[in-house]
Amino acid sequence: MSEFPLRYELLATCPHTSARRGRIHTAHGTVETPAFMPVGTQGSVKTVGSEDLEAAGFQQVLANTYHLSLRPGEDLVERFGGLHELMSWRGPILTDSGGYQVMSLSKWRKISDEGVVFKSHLDGSELFLTPEKSMEIQSKLGVDIAMCLDECPPYPCTREEAARAMERTHKWLPRNLASKGEKTNLFGIVQGGVHEDLRRESAETVSSMSFDGVAIGGVSVGEPTEMQYPVVEFTTPLLPKDKPRYLMGVGHPQDIFHAVKCGVDLFDCVLPTRMARHHALYTMQGRVNAMNLQWAEHKGWFDEDSIFPPTERYSAAYVRHLFKAEEPLGARLASLHNLWFYSRMMQEIRDAIEKGTWPELMARYAHA
Amino acid sequence: MSEFPLRYELLATCPHTSARRGRIHTAHGTVETPAFMPVGTQGSVKTVGSEDLEAAGFQQVLANTYHLSLRPGEDLVERFGGLHELMSWRGPILTDSGGYQVMSLSKWRKISDEGVVFKSHLDGSELFLTPEKSMEIQSKLGVDIAMCLDECPPYPCTREEAARAMERTHKWLPRNLASKGEKTNLFGIVQGGVHEDLRRESAETVSSMSFDGVAIGGVSVGEPTEMQYPVVEFTTPLLPKDKPRYLMGVGHPQDIFHAVKCGVDLFDCVLPTRMARHHALYTMQGRVNAMNLQWAEHKGWFDEDSIFPPTERYSAAYVRHLFKAEEPLGARLASLHNLWFYSRMMQEIRDAIEKGTWPELMARYAHA
Repeated sequence: MSEFPLRYELLATCPHTSARRGRIHTAHGTVETPAFMPVGTQGSVKTVGSEDLEAAGFQQVLANTYHLSLRPGEDLVERFGGLHELMSWRGPILTDSGGYQVMSLSKWRKISDEGVVFKSHLDGSELFLTPEKSMEIQSKLGVDIAMCLDECPPYPCTREEAARAMERTHKWLPRNLASKGEKTNLFGIVQGGVHEDLRRESAETVSSMSFDGVAIGGVSVGEPTEMQYPVVEFTTPLLPKDKPRYLMGVGHPQDIFHAVKCGVDLFDCVLPTRMARHHALYTMQGRVNAMNLQWAEHKGWFDEDSIFPPTERYSAAYVRHLFKAEEPLGARLASLHNLWFYSRMMQEIRDAIEKGTWPELMARYAHA
Repeated sequence: MSEFPLRYELLATCPHTSARRGRIHTAHGTVETPAFMPVGTQGSVKTVGSEDLEAAGFQQVLANTYHLSLRPGEDLVERFGGLHELMSWRGPILTDSGGYQVMSLSKWRKISDEGVVFKSHLDGSELFLTPEKSMEIQSKLGVDIAMCLDECPPYPCTREEAARAMERTHKWLPRNLASKGEKTNLFGIVQGGVHEDLRRESAETVSSMSFDGVAIGGVSVGEPTEMQYPVVEFTTPLLPKDKPRYLMGVGHPQDIFHAVKCGVDLFDCVLPTRMARHHALYTMQGRVNAMNLQWAEHKGWFDEDSIFPPTERYSAAYVRHLFKAEEPLGARLASLHNLWFYSRMMQEIRDAIEKGTWPELMARYAHA
């Protein structure tokens, strides 16, 4: 059902965990949750087309505001009819605010309460990003879900730095809300680093405002897993039950299972496609390196339990040969495999919540 | 119909030209001719899978003996069950002899009547290629059609050099024939440079021997079109009528039309995929550069008369954006377009010969 603003529909809760099975209804269609969004940084999920993503069963993709603003530019995208039109993606699209890329990609930046001055990683030109500007760009991109511009401190940072970043993020929340596009759903972002009291304060602040969904930010920014998990555990229950909950930038299969158990609905991560380009394929026995000699003459696939339609005619030996010979088809076949692996995993997560078979799911994916 | 040795079946001749419409029956199926073979140098047509080639309507592909011998090696391919199995290609496969790549890619080589000593372009190791060795490699690859090792002199060369290369090629012909694989069809190659008398001598020599097909070599090696066309014109009529005729490494659409008119049946060329990686798309109005500013906001395709299924959902603006942003999907979409363009062109060539509508075909492709 096409709806604006978006609506979160709760379908079922897990009898074993805090996981929830739901649906997000948007103007561009419905997303069955928990859901994983492949990352199309520049309006393209690397090596695959929108038809490949549809075939894999994905319903929503993520794109990066920072990259698209630099190339091809939000004004061009707006004149073109929006990002859906440009990349031929019919389902909902979520964009980040650009803030994270400013922090991670630009060589120089200066942050103040007003916004961030930074230099383009492409040509060094000086640019200025504010909540208003981020909302303007995301509105021009015409996406379904925009993210608030926040300050995401790098890991490690002191408690003081985490608090300061959280406070600035809170100051920016109303500015984001006030300037969001007319057809834009806006998600607030909870910050607070690894500190439970800060996360609580941030969750309460974000929850009190009229966002269409809430994200947990500042996770998966370099901290070890043993610090990431508690943050998700104590933050997720503090989020509104009637809105989608999105854990930004996560992650590995086990990270996703953990967060789903805590009640998270939405995920995005570059891992499946980035790993694929680095010769790593997900299997039910963990990631394998396609360059390993063991695959040199292997006629079957890397994992007999994970054979998917777009790659089923090929062998592990062929993929290894393609990588060895630096043939571009190698990255494509590995990307298709990993995307289908993630898509199936999310489908099995949704099924397990509905059917009350979470323990069986955990046993099945124990080594993934 | 599955046949070994291969059989050429003449279906129709063109009332306007010397073009002929036929079929090559092989153990891996039938090829409707005139046909174009996409080039899968290392066992992969760059950026596309075998399923993409099948969807585009191609029935036969070419692979390079030199590259496959270096990586993954003919012994591995043989143990694997052959190149068909490795690259999951069900139709016939033709390989070149490796001689051309030795000449064009290795930094050092020494040619004698015995064979060619050369250094690998990958690691500089010294290798020795003879007719016997080339046949052994191609046999281990398990291809349907192998090519004789020949000496293909670079352009420009003196008449003396052309004659010497031709004579060595002739000396090697019986050695190729004597050592070909049991299940291998073998094509002889006519050399002789741009000299009509040498080409005649070579055509007679090759025609007198029991090859399964005959190729015109030493064309499209750097000479200008006005020197290439006469060679095809005076050589093709000298070739046996009951065997497939293959013009190696050609070419541009107009070069293919010209050669088909002379009676050529088979073509291969890297152009459609190499051009695609260099942002050039074939259209009915000639090649266009996808990077050109004119496409920046173009919602349609580059050519409204050449919209093919795998790219029909996308716009010229998107392809330009992908190239500008160095997204790998750009090369894939452009490659798919060019391959479909060539495939349709060959289908229209076959139709025009059968229906006697060659002049109409020439008018339609006048600007392509």
